[in-house]
Formats: sequence, structure tokens, C-alpha cells
Amino acid sequence: MIKTDIIIIGAGPCGLFSVFEAGLLNMRCHLIDYLPQPGGQCSEIYPKKPIYDIPGFPSILAGDLVNNLMNQIKPFQPGFTLGERVEKVSKGKDNFFTVTTSRGTKHMSKVIVIAAGLGCFEPRKPAIDSLDLFEDYGVDYIIKDPMKFNNKKVVISGGGDSALDWAIHLAKDICSEVTLVHRRDSFRGHLDSIEQVKKLAAAGKINLYTNSEVTKLEGDSYLDTIIIKTENQEINQKTDYWIPLFGLSPKLGPIANWGLGLEKNAIIVNTEDYSTNIPGIYAIGDINTYPGKLKLILSGFHESALMSHSAFKFVFPEGKKSFKYTTVLGGIEGFKS
Amino acid sequence: MIKTDIIIIGAGPCGLFSVFEAGLLNMRCHLIDYLPQPGGQCSEIYPKKPIYDIPGFPSILAGDLVNNLMNQIKPFQPGFTLGERVEKVSKGKDNFFTVTTSRGTKHMSKVIVIAAGLGCFEPRKPAIDSLDLFEDYGVDYIIKDPMKFNNKKVVISGGGDSALDWAIHLAKDICSEVTLVHRRDSFRGHLDSIEQVKKLAAAGKINLYTNSEVTKLEGDSYLDTIIIKTENQEINQKTDYWIPLFGLSPKLGPIANWGLGLEKNAIIVNTEDYSTNIPGIYAIGDINTYPGKLKLILSGFHESALMSHSAFKFVFPEGKKSFKYTTVLGGIEGFKS
Repeated sequence: MIKTDIIIIGAGPCGLFSVFEAGLLNMRCHLIDYLPQPGGQCSEIYPKKPIYDIPGFPSILAGDLVNNLMNQIKPFQPGFTLGERVEKVSKGKDNFFTVTTSRGTKHMSKVIVIAAGLGCFEPRKPAIDSLDLFEDYGVDYIIKDPMKFNNKKVVISGGGDSALDWAIHLAKDICSEVTLVHRRDSFRGHLDSIEQVKKLAAAGKINLYTNSEVTKLEGDSYLDTIIIKTENQEINQKTDYWIPLFGLSPKLGPIANWGLGLEKNAIIVNTEDYSTNIPGIYAIGDINTYPGKLKLILSGFHESALMSHSAFKFVFPEGKKSFKYTTVLGGIEGFKS
Repeated sequence: MIKTDIIIIGAGPCGLFSVFEAGLLNMRCHLIDYLPQPGGQCSEIYPKKPIYDIPGFPSILAGDLVNNLMNQIKPFQPGFTLGERVEKVSKGKDNFFTVTTSRGTKHMSKVIVIAAGLGCFEPRKPAIDSLDLFEDYGVDYIIKDPMKFNNKKVVISGGGDSALDWAIHLAKDICSEVTLVHRRDSFRGHLDSIEQVKKLAAAGKINLYTNSEVTKLEGDSYLDTIIIKTENQEINQKTDYWIPLFGLSPKLGPIANWGLGLEKNAIIVNTEDYSTNIPGIYAIGDINTYPGKLKLILSGFHESALMSHSAFKFVFPEGKKSFKYTTVLGGIEGFKS
């Protein structure tokens, strides 16, 4: 059980900056994200893409923005639960919420901040019978720690950069066998990555099947064999893992069922403090809506500041420590332990 | 007559960033500030002070933040009227406001954005008879262009960094004679600056009078002689200029009389778009107030974005050019001419 002042759902830029604003008020934060690393879309989808509309940065790569934010919040020692999706929320008699993830990790706090961007990025799943039976038993949709596949046989499906990059990385250093299956003839990734995959295939380091599909999974509780349908045959292939990398699709996910006021898939908030209709639950960043809302990273940054001041009063109705502007403080104190 | 889409009163960080947000919507801006350079307090009062609460910057010097913002808005070619205070506003039948400064410069636009921070930083004026008669006729309160004093005799009053720094700079390179008058024995500035002034005084480059005051101004329409009262005598000294540098004091200034809704010296705004009670006039940054308001630079940045989208509808009720997020645009286009 993880206990903290504020649980932040979503470790994108707005969730991260909330740690700073809450930290200035002496509140501790714990972030939960389904993605395996902090930064949200900035890290997962476009880390090398320049952003032009962050005040003070004529241009900054999304990945660098995340790194800067991680440095900025370091003094406030945030906790992270990564690679797990928030599933359930409940409220106890002590006014503490309990947030439970897809892997059963439990977190407790008086305040929940939903900073989930476009929602949970759920993997697009292939339509294959009994797929769900093998989830976590040989089927993975995201690669959290590549060393999990050390000396294993892995089949990757997909034709985008994610599939190509992982196939290259796992084939070069990690797996005993890598197979890449793509249903088309041509790949959508960077030319350079496509070249590399072809070279590794020619060198026998990657089994490459184009115009092919994985059609069936077999195994006794744990995945053991997959059936690959190529243009003219069906191949039964032994494998330890199948990793279909068909992209991520944004979904509000289980949060949609928490009883929050919603409008067009966004959470309705009060513009004074970005609180929702449930006391103690706030929503900031792209996931909220209010009159005049603009979906800019900048908006979420400002919302995180106002939210933090309101959350402070919620967590410590009798006051705890007065807020000091950093310019007055002469620096960032952070937490001692 | 300067004609533009948006007149921004105050060239501090929020005023500057408004140029960017308005520029993305294809609107041109012109900034007016009483200070001689852009950046507001960040440039004038604490350019070398680190700021810790700008998202994405674990620490940035105020002066560097201003430089970054100037680079960021460059593609949108803002106009500047500096060293002039906004005095009057009037509205014509064509729905254009006319804004007139202390020096009579006239600006026209359909939208005015007040981003004046703590207000106009007015110089603290010494209590001397007939001071106002010599303003602009030998008495200056801010140094806009030091070359104005080339080969002139100048008397500076004051004991802070501003007085010390200017005395050193003018004595070394520019003036034919520099006198520094300070009513106390000790100075409030950096030790290094104090050392330098003492050395220049010892070398005869600065006439230094401590425990002394300027008590009288004389001249026939233009300043000619000042009377300096020292501990034991009165000195009549010929001079071309007297520059009392007693610091700046924030004041709402003439804006207070425009009929705007005010609360505790701040302008009341609608949180949806930061519009005031006068259609076409907006207020952003430290000068506005609304429920939940936090006086952070970050707040003004976000307010500038929402204000710009509202101002766009005000300036072009039938639409002009659709807003594109910079990430979609793939960069900043700016204006061609």
C-alpha cells in the first residue's frame, strides 16, 4: 500500500509539473501511468519532435521537456507506479481514496488528480481467439523492460517504428530468436530502420515474414506456439513471447465509470481550481473541459498550480505550511527525506 | 499613428508571450512600456535573479527568460513604444481604440491587452520645489539612452545599484563631468560597485558627495544650476542634467481612471477569456484578479493564450484564418512582411 498526499493519474508533462506545484506547498505526490516511462505522449509518441509553444522555449524537443521537468521535480521526490493502468477507486470512512491498478497495486490519498491527457493509451489488440487468456502469460503489448526477454524466443507483429525498433534492439543484443511478422509487404517506419531490419534478416538474425499474420495462439496456460499464416502456408512456431505492436489508441478507460461529470469524453471541471464534481478529485490538462479551454501543455501547467492550492486546503483544512514563492524562498528546498 | 491588431500595455513576460499566442492566430501586436527596454521587472529589477517556477526550467535567470521570449516572438515582428507611459484611451465610431502616451504617441487597435504587472513603475520623485518644471528640461528619472549625456555635465542622486552603476558607466566613457550625491554615508549597492565608485572619486572622475542632498534647481526654462547641501555648506553647481535615481514605485497609474472594474488595485476579469468589463479590453498577468488567481508568471502565460483566442473573435468576428497548433504546423511561420 502506497500512501501519499496526492495521487496523480498520468505522468505526462502536466502530471509531472503538478509534483512541483504541490511540492512548493509541502505536499508529496505519487504518479501512476500505464506507459512504462514518465512523459506521456511526449516520451512515448514524439520524443524527438520539437514543440514551439512552451513559453520561454522558442523550440524544445518533447523528450527534452520531459527531462527538464523530471529535473525540476526531483527535489520533491515523486513516487511512480509505471506500466500499470488505474482500474478502481473507492473511498473509505477516513476520507482517503484507494486507487487500485490493473496489477493490483494499491495507493491511498485524500486527493486524486487526473492528468491523463487523451486518456489511457491502450494498445490496439489483434482480433484473435483466446488472446486474453495469454495476456501476461506470453503476450505483451508494451515493452517495459527489454531484459525480460533475455535469451528468449520472441515474435513481434507490426509494421511501424515501434515494431521495427524493438525487433532490431532485441535481435542485436538480447533475444535468442526474433521473428518479425507484418501483414503487408512494405513497412511504415524510418527508411534507416527498414534497412537495418532487412540486413538483420539477411544475416539470419531476424526471421522476417511479410504479407503474413499471426492467426492462432497455443499453449497450456502459458504461450508455447503461434501459428503464422503466410501467403502460401501456415507455420507452427515455438515461442516464449508474442508482442503485437499495433500502436496505442487513447481511451478514457475505467475512469469513465467513476461518476465524474463528462462532456465529449472530457471531464467537466470548475475553472476556479479544476475540481470535478467529486470532492477531492481534480482533472487537469487535455482530459478536462471548461468554457474557453485550450488543449495546450501550457494550460495544464497553469491548471496544476491552481489545483495544487485548492488541494492544499482540501488535504490540510487547518493549514500546514504557508506557500512561499520560489523567488522569495531564494530557491527550491525540496524534501529532506 | 501606429495601427495594429492588438495594443499590449506592458512589455513584461506576459505581454511578450501574448505576441506569440496572438501571432499564431495571425494577429499583429504593438507593445507599450514605460521602461526603456522589454522584460518588465525581469529586465529592470532582477535580470540576474534565478526563477525556479517556470515549467521546464529547473532554474532560469529572469534576463534569460526575457531573451528567450524575445526570440520566441521574433517571427511575429512586434512593434514597441518604450520609455513612454500610457495616459489616455478613447474609442472612435469605427470601434477602434486610440491609446495616447505621455509623449503624445498615438496607437490604434480594436483590442487592448493590459499586461502591466504591478502597474506602471513610476520613479520615486524627490520633494523639491519646481521639480515638474524641469522634467524633460534637464531632469530625467530613467536613463533610456546613455549617449544622450555624451560630453555633458551630469549630477546623479541616489545610493542604490542603479545610481552606482550609472555613475560608473557615465564617468568612464560618456560624460564630461559626473557628480554623485547621496544623503547617507554608506551605499546600498554591490560591494564591488561601491569600490569602483570610490576609486573613480579618488581619481577625480566622479565628484562624490555623501551625507548630502540636492535641495534646489535653478535655470531659465532649462536646468542650469543645482544646489547641493552637504554637512557644512551649500554648493552651487553648474550642470546639464540631474538624474535622481531613487527607485521605482508600482502604480496602476492613469489606467485606474478608465472605468475598468477594480478590486484592491487589480482589474477584475472574466475567467473564460480574461476580458474586462469594457468590451475589447483584456487584462492578463499580475494586474488582473479572479477567483483562484495566483500571481505567477505562468498564470499570465496561460491567460495570454485564452485571451488571444477571444481577441481573435473580437477583431475578426467573421473569422480570418484558422488557428493551427504549432505541432501540426510543424513550426512557426511568422509574418512575411
